[in-house]
Amino acid sequence: MLLTTIKDVAKEAGVAVATVSRVLNNRGYLSDSTRKKVYEAMERLNYKPNEISRSLFRKKSNILGVIVPSVSHPFFSELVGHIEYFAYQAGYKVLICNSYADNGKEREYLEMISSNQVDGFIGAIYTSNSDDYIKPDMPLVTLDMNINGLPYITSDHYNGGEIATNFLIDRGCKKIAHICGDLEIDILANNRSKAFINVTKKQNINSVLEESKLSRFDEYKKTVIKMFEEHPEIDGVFASSDIIAASVIHVAGLNGKSIPEDIKIVGYDDIDMAAMTVPPITTIKQDIEKIGELAVKTLLNKIEGKEVTLENILPVELVERETT
Amino acid sequence: MLLTTIKDVAKEAGVAVATVSRVLNNRGYLSDSTRKKVYEAMERLNYKPNEISRSLFRKKSNILGVIVPSVSHPFFSELVGHIEYFAYQAGYKVLICNSYADNGKEREYLEMISSNQVDGFIGAIYTSNSDDYIKPDMPLVTLDMNINGLPYITSDHYNGGEIATNFLIDRGCKKIAHICGDLEIDILANNRSKAFINVTKKQNINSVLEESKLSRFDEYKKTVIKMFEEHPEIDGVFASSDIIAASVIHVAGLNGKSIPEDIKIVGYDDIDMAAMTVPPITTIKQDIEKIGELAVKTLLNKIEGKEVTLENILPVELVERETT
Repeated sequence: MLLTTIKDVAKEAGVAVATVSRVLNNRGYLSDSTRKKVYEAMERLNYKPNEISRSLFRKKSNILGVIVPSVSHPFFSELVGHIEYFAYQAGYKVLICNSYADNGKEREYLEMISSNQVDGFIGAIYTSNSDDYIKPDMPLVTLDMNINGLPYITSDHYNGGEIATNFLIDRGCKKIAHICGDLEIDILANNRSKAFINVTKKQNINSVLEESKLSRFDEYKKTVIKMFEEHPEIDGVFASSDIIAASVIHVAGLNGKSIPEDIKIVGYDDIDMAAMTVPPITTIKQDIEKIGELAVKTLLNKIEGKEVTLENILPVELVERETT
Repeated sequence: MLLTTIKDVAKEAGVAVATVSRVLNNRGYLSDSTRKKVYEAMERLNYKPNEISRSLFRKKSNILGVIVPSVSHPFFSELVGHIEYFAYQAGYKVLICNSYADNGKEREYLEMISSNQVDGFIGAIYTSNSDDYIKPDMPLVTLDMNINGLPYITSDHYNGGEIATNFLIDRGCKKIAHICGDLEIDILANNRSKAFINVTKKQNINSVLEESKLSRFDEYKKTVIKMFEEHPEIDGVFASSDIIAASVIHVAGLNGKSIPEDIKIVGYDDIDMAAMTVPPITTIKQDIEKIGELAVKTLLNKIEGKEVTLENILPVELVERETT
C-alpha cells in the first residue's frame, strides 16, 4: 500500500498543498470551512500526520470535557467536583455536559475535540449506538463502560455486589430484594446485579429483582411500594444506589417497619447523603475521589501520547452504618 | 479630552498600527504575547473600540463559565445542571469552576474572558476582596451578591426568612433557633437571617442564633448537638439550608425527640434531598431552575450588549412536608 501524503490530502480536499500544511501546523489565517474540508479529507484517506506535526496541529485549549448523564445526580456532582480539582492541579479547566443519555448531544460535545476547543473527554457514556462517533484513537477515557477499546475507569462492581449480598445473608436475611437501574445497558456497574443473582442462587436464598428504568426518587418509591405489596416478607434489600436505599427507608416508614429490625438495607456509592439519612445507610463505598483522579491522570497521559492502562478497576469497601 | 485612537494604542504597545488592527479584527497570525501587549495597552489607555470592531475582535468561544464554591454541594449541582441545560439550548457550552472561595482561582478563571476562551461568567462569588479583579463592564452575572454594579440574580431571601419564622411561630413554637452560615460575608442570602432576627424581636419570641462557618454535614451536627445541650427547650428550628435541616433531624433522633411533635423544622432551598429524608423537610423553595434560566438569559444579553436588569429578585415559597 502506498503511503498517503499531504499532496493526496490537498487533492482530496480541493485545496493547495500549502493550505494543508497550514492546517497541520495551525499557522496563518484559515477559515473554519477550509479547516473542516482538510480534516474531512484526512479522515476519508485515513491520513495520519507524524507525531511532530500532529502535536503542532493540535492546538491545545487546556480544557477537558466531562460527559455525565446528569450533573445534578449526587454521584456525578461529587465526581465532577473531584475531576475539576485534579484537572485544575494539572493546569486544565473542565467543561461539563449533561448528556441525558442523548447520542446527538454526546456526539456534538465530542466534536469539540476536532475543533480544538477541548483537549479530551472523560465520559460516563451509558448509551448504546455510540460506536459510530466514538473512535479508539480519541482522547477519551470512559467510566464504567468498555467502548471500542478505550481506556476506562470502573469500580470492582462484581465484588461490591458479592459483599453486599453476603453481608445481608450473614445478618440473617431470608428473602432479599435487589433494586437496580436498567440492566439492558451494557454498563460495568450492572456487575453488582450479576453478583447478587449468582450469590443468592448459589446460597439458595429467596430473592426478588426489581429494575427501575427511571432514575428518579419518586419513581424508586413507586417501585419499592409495589415490591413490598407483592413481597411483604422481604427482610433485606440490596439497593444499587444510596438514593434507592433512601427510598426504601421511606417506604419502610410508611409500612410501619423498623430498620434494621424488620428490614436491613445495603446501599451503593457512599455519596455524602448516605450519612445524612435517618438511619444513616450501610453502603458499598466507591472511591469517587480516586475515580476522578485516575480518570484525569489517564486522560492526560493519553493526550500526551503516553502508554495508558486500558482497564482500571478500583476496589470497593463496605461502610457499616445503621441500616443493617 | 482627546479621543484615544488606534495609533495611540500601537505606540503604547510598541507594535505597528496594522498589528493593533489585526488584534481588533482577529485576523491573521498573532502570537499570544503580541495580543496580550495590545490588550494591555488598550486597557492602560482605556481605549474602547467601537461596537463593530469590538464584536469582531471578540472571538466568540460559545463557552460560558460558571463559578460556584463547590459543585458537589447539592444546591450548586442542581443549579449547574439547569445552567448547562439553558446554555445548551442557546448554543453555548459550560465550563465549571469550584472556587472553594479562593480569590486567586476566581481571578484565574475570569481571565479566560480576556483570552477569549470563555464569553462570560455566571458567578456565585462569595468572597470579599474581589473588587480588584471584578470590573463593572465584565460579561459577568453574579448570584446572591451585588458586586460592583454587575447584574445579579437572587431569591427574595428576606421574605423567605419571614415566611419560615412566622410559620414556626404560627405552629406554636416558643423558643426558635436559627442555624446559618457565616453572617460576616455580605451575601444577599443572609437576608433570611436578618428577617429571622427582626421577626422574633418584633413578636417577642425567645430565639437562638447559631453560625456554622464550616459548611459540612458533620460540622453542622456538632453545632446542633452543642446548641441543644445549651438550649434543651428549643422547639422550633429555622435552618438556612436543607442540609442543616437534615442535621437537625439527626440530632433530634439522637436526643430521643420526635419531629414534628417536640421539634418543628423549616429548611431552605428545596434541593431534591429535602423530599428524601425521613421525615421529609418542610422548606422554603428557591426556584433553582428559574435562577439558572435567568442567569443564562441575563448573561447572554450582557454579552450581546443589550440592556439588562441589574437587580433580579425571584420569589420564594413555603413547601410544607412533615417536619412541621
